[in-house]
Amino acid sequence: MLKKIGSIIPLLLLVALPAYAAEPTVESLELSVNLVWVMLGAILVFFMHAGFTLVETGFTRAKNSLNIIMKNFLTISLVSILYYLVGFGLMFGDSAGGVVGTNGFFLSGREDIDFFIFQAMFAATSITIISGAVAERIHILSYMLIAIGMSIVIYPIIGHWVWSGDGWLAQLGFTDFAGSTVVHLTGGIAALTVVIFLGPRIGKYTGKKVNVIPGHNIPLGALGVFVLWLGWFGFNGASTLAADTSLVPNVIATTLLSTSAAFVASALYTRIRFGKIDPSISLNGVLGGLVGITAGAADISIPGSIVVGLVSGILLVEGVRFLDAKLRVDDPVGAIAVHGICGIWGTLAVGLFSTSSGLFYGAGASQLGIQALGVLAVLVYTFLLVSVITVVINYIYPIRVSSEEEIAGLDYSEHGAYAYEWSQSLLERVINGNEEKPVHGLGLADRLNNLARGTVNSKTS
Amino acid sequence: MLKKIGSIIPLLLLVALPAYAAEPTVESLELSVNLVWVMLGAILVFFMHAGFTLVETGFTRAKNSLNIIMKNFLTISLVSILYYLVGFGLMFGDSAGGVVGTNGFFLSGREDIDFFIFQAMFAATSITIISGAVAERIHILSYMLIAIGMSIVIYPIIGHWVWSGDGWLAQLGFTDFAGSTVVHLTGGIAALTVVIFLGPRIGKYTGKKVNVIPGHNIPLGALGVFVLWLGWFGFNGASTLAADTSLVPNVIATTLLSTSAAFVASALYTRIRFGKIDPSISLNGVLGGLVGITAGAADISIPGSIVVGLVSGILLVEGVRFLDAKLRVDDPVGAIAVHGICGIWGTLAVGLFSTSSGLFYGAGASQLGIQALGVLAVLVYTFLLVSVITVVINYIYPIRVSSEEEIAGLDYSEHGAYAYEWSQSLLERVINGNEEKPVHGLGLADRLNNLARGTVNSKTS
Amino acid sequence: MLKKIGSIIPLLLLVALPAYAAEPTVESLELSVNLVWVMLGAILVFFMHAGFTLVETGFTRAKNSLNIIMKNFLTISLVSILYYLVGFGLMFGDSAGGVVGTNGFFLSGREDIDFFIFQAMFAATSITIISGAVAERIHILSYMLIAIGMSIVIYPIIGHWVWSGDGWLAQLGFTDFAGSTVVHLTGGIAALTVVIFLGPRIGKYTGKKVNVIPGHNIPLGALGVFVLWLGWFGFNGASTLAADTSLVPNVIATTLLSTSAAFVASALYTRIRFGKIDPSISLNGVLGGLVGITAGAADISIPGSIVVGLVSGILLVEGVRFLDAKLRVDDPVGAIAVHGICGIWGTLAVGLFSTSSGLFYGAGASQLGIQALGVLAVLVYTFLLVSVITVVINYIYPIRVSSEEEIAGLDYSEHGAYAYEWSQSLLERVINGNEEKPVHGLGLADRLNNLARGTVNSKTS
Repeated sequence: MLKKIGSIIPLLLLVALPAYAAEPTVESLELSVNLVWVMLGAILVFFMHAGFTLVETGFTRAKNSLNIIMKNFLTISLVSILYYLVGFGLMFGDSAGGVVGTNGFFLSGREDIDFFIFQAMFAATSITIISGAVAERIHILSYMLIAIGMSIVIYPIIGHWVWSGDGWLAQLGFTDFAGSTVVHLTGGIAALTVVIFLGPRIGKYTGKKVNVIPGHNIPLGALGVFVLWLGWFGFNGASTLAADTSLVPNVIATTLLSTSAAFVASALYTRIRFGKIDPSISLNGVLGGLVGITAGAADISIPGSIVVGLVSGILLVEGVRFLDAKLRVDDPVGAIAVHGICGIWGTLAVGLFSTSSGLFYGAGASQLGIQALGVLAVLVYTFLLVSVITVVINYIYPIRVSSEEEIAGLDYSEHGAYAYEWSQSLLERVINGNEEKPVHGLGLADRLNNLARGTVNSKTS
Repeated sequence: MLKKIGSIIPLLLLVALPAYAAEPTVESLELSVNLVWVMLGAILVFFMHAGFTLVETGFTRAKNSLNIIMKNFLTISLVSILYYLVGFGLMFGDSAGGVVGTNGFFLSGREDIDFFIFQAMFAATSITIISGAVAERIHILSYMLIAIGMSIVIYPIIGHWVWSGDGWLAQLGFTDFAGSTVVHLTGGIAALTVVIFLGPRIGKYTGKKVNVIPGHNIPLGALGVFVLWLGWFGFNGASTLAADTSLVPNVIATTLLSTSAAFVASALYTRIRFGKIDPSISLNGVLGGLVGITAGAADISIPGSIVVGLVSGILLVEGVRFLDAKLRVDDPVGAIAVHGICGIWGTLAVGLFSTSSGLFYGAGASQLGIQALGVLAVLVYTFLLVSVITVVINYIYPIRVSSEEEIAGLDYSEHGAYAYEWSQSLLERVINGNEEKPVHGLGLADRLNNLARGTVNSKTS
Repeated sequence: MLKKIGSIIPLLLLVALPAYAAEPTVESLELSVNLVWVMLGAILVFFMHAGFTLVETGFTRAKNSLNIIMKNFLTISLVSILYYLVGFGLMFGDSAGGVVGTNGFFLSGREDIDFFIFQAMFAATSITIISGAVAERIHILSYMLIAIGMSIVIYPIIGHWVWSGDGWLAQLGFTDFAGSTVVHLTGGIAALTVVIFLGPRIGKYTGKKVNVIPGHNIPLGALGVFVLWLGWFGFNGASTLAADTSLVPNVIATTLLSTSAAFVASALYTRIRFGKIDPSISLNGVLGGLVGITAGAADISIPGSIVVGLVSGILLVEGVRFLDAKLRVDDPVGAIAVHGICGIWGTLAVGLFSTSSGLFYGAGASQLGIQALGVLAVLVYTFLLVSVITVVINYIYPIRVSSEEEIAGLDYSEHGAYAYEWSQSLLERVINGNEEKPVHGLGLADRLNNLARGTVNSKTS
């Protein structure tokens, strides 16, 4: 094509591309095909951040929407820059004892920029998982500091252990194809840790009651689930790092079918368990299914992937219930169950269902043991480090907003704005009785909240 | 790239890919390029299911949003699994007399997993067409059973006739490049059949009046139309099954320009016909344009595609009017006109505009006759089989919800939840006069409905 | 793959592809790989139109949503057809003195249909920029005529100057890799010109006060920003026109990191400047960052791109303020600042940061001077031509709606419909006190507006 339209492209391009344009070879073409596949994957994983934003916005209250949106944009932006400056080097630089990379900071000496882009999107994915769990009550600047900490001392270190060839877990044979552990478990445990420090939202647990605080726009959240599933085909599919004709179709097929099985399982299981198909939990079942097949997408057969998905779907339902009703961990969007619990399941599932090393395929329990060890290591490291980071940040700048700010909503208290000005203004006028000088801000928020207390429906668990 | 970053990818990958990584050839690279193109197509067609969900949700009432979302997720999930288990074999297995495939179930003996993935997305597309037409009044479990029936005894059989080389319609020379008939007409006729059994929504036809029941969120629906158009570039574009440098650009160009012409035609025609550009119908004009060019995208020239699109756009407007006002078929989202009527038009258009076999290109009427025969066969087969399935299911489990459930909305009656809890709760409070114990559920639904009766605007057709 | 599944694809395909299917060569494969990359890019740029629609809808008032959606669909549809008929020829046909192309109309004699598709999407992008700035007060038919004028006498001419090898600006060495000037500055200046003729919306400037008219659905707008960022990876990435393994990763990396820096800069700068992170302006910061790196994405290093992005982000904040508060240019979505101001900055940035010709890399100021000349030429040409077009159209058909229509909202006055029928009807009933015959249309709009006057919050600038 370069030759065909040679006359119409900027002169610059012709100057910049002499070697390539001159003589393509089988080797150069292989690099090009793989480039297209990996870039497609990176672009799809980028779009997952729109998916997270939609899920988190839709599944929480309208008064915190702008704040959630800002947190998500900050995550993808800040983490991309930090991963360029330090993360990629710590993760894929020459290894110091299998623990951490030591060079390649700001891509110095690296030529695999395509690989950096793909990996930067993964780093941002892991860190944005926290965003949903801590929604509706964290200071945005504290969240920023936590995201910076995760980007430097947690995610790339764990990534080095598993995905750098010299990492100590990789050396042991720990297998995590696209990141059930590296990306999702790390993010899920970090989320759990911060949530423990933050505590539940006002009104979530009253006495013995476990209350439901429903999301304000489930269609938006459902679109987010579709966007995440879409992006995950890039997340898992391009983790092959090559347009491999035998590996890629298998990865896409297991990702599709495992997730399908998880959704069907969640939907039917909620019907059996609660009498009706529960939309919010079933939609989380899709995400649980995606996390569950991520570690083994390349090593598990299609029938195996369906079984893994069925388990993911049921586990997700029980996981959400367990965390909420038993442990009283207030996670507005179910992120800890999706990424934490299904992340553990997905990692262990490799030890059970891998066609080459799985227990169910006659290869013994050694892979399963290594997988369990990896899970444990990541769990302990992440919990300890995030605890330290959170305590330090909380000392510098309180991570939790005041109860007045929380009741007013973070959109007003942190950003001085509303996500849905039109309908809110109109409702305010109705409520204020069309007074000339309507009550705004905290005063109004109180009145709105008194009025809308019904959104917090009490339900004994 | 594999070599370049060899040290950083999981050991497993290196073990799994020796042959490929070792020596790429021109032949292996051709397979890789085609793989990337077909996988991109499959991923885009997957995303069309988000588009259907958005269109169906936006063009119906808020009180049925969650139910619509669940139906769409069930379709893509269930159909993917069923297509793996039986559909793909029935469609592309060795032919029994040109009527049905007989092997390849759960992909046994098949190596073309990429082709399976692409085709599974098509199967789900055909079946999800029903979802919109039956919205707001079908039991979700009955819908599930219909989807299962379609997945086994209808869609793959018709697919075998047309797209398996040995199918009887294929043998006659019937041409349906990407599925105006196989996917869209089949789905549209199935939708029509179920709608006839279901009957119209309460309040849709009162005496001689044809009432409009407007959608609750047209911006969401419009986004869905964009997503469908986006996905259709994969639907038509990757139906080439290869990154063919002469065929693909033509297919993408006809898909773009035919659809553009259809939208302009719909918009201007509604202005002439009704005095104003009608947004909902014009948006359906986009979808009609997409369906109209699907059969001939590879065989029709660009100018021809523009003419096909103009006709699609006008046909859609009249089709929607005819079905609604004359036949009194209540299709909330216009799916039958879009997929049924424009599906027929698109299939026949091949007989008129194909540059190799079309009547307008001097090749006589034989192709047109074959196209008409194919349309007739699919129409009759689908109508009969779906009728039987619907009657049987209705006997087991009534397909239509009770009028109380319909008035309350399927979100409440089928799922016990609301899509927009925040605004609904706030409105309830306003309506309930801020009582301490607001009326919920059916009682409230009645009051809301009395209040909101205005959403059903009477209009004599 | 063609061989592998030979038996199952339509006969037609086999007939159509003999040469290709028979013997792939390194040369044919190179064309195929580039085709996939450019088609992926075109599809992503197509989807940017969904992004523009979402941003413009979300950042304006609910009563103009349908009108905005129709304008955007009209733009992509009409411009695609016009670019096929005349635009592509004027832009890339044989040059008449470096000023305009003279052949290739309706693609006659052209074989590079893939390039046409990619470029058609760019043309539509440039023109749709106007749509947001003129929102809430322009007649849709006048907008259509302006879009037609832009498609014929403005965009393709400027495109010829810069992107046709023989264009006079190209000959001078003007460098605009993916269109900071050709696409964005052209669109931004056209928007500014029409806005000057249109004047501000009713209630925007009252006496010395500059009032804020907030958008009605910022989450929808934020999704639009994500979609635009996603699409921009295709916009910049595929402007390489080849799957070049050294150029593409650099372009994607600069696009990612420059934009990330711009968002962080906007967010933190609004906090310093206004005391809080402003969501609407920060989201526009993303778009400003994207426009800012577009001209130099292939010529600027990664560290350079981060600096360019930081400047874009701050410039956007001040630009929005300057246009609104000082010049009193009423641009509801900030399009002029995003595409105009950041378009100029991005173009000049090449003269500063280009690693081959930039001032900061020791190459002197000559590139910078050429860039400035190009900016000036495009600015003057676009301003003059759009002025003439606007005056002529305004003479034929008034471009601005009446104040009654503006207050009622263009959804009602231009389309006779509402975007959110459900909530509007419900609110109307509440407001109307549940009367049997509610007030509709203009009468109701007045009452709603009286009620909702609070949406126009007065604020002295």
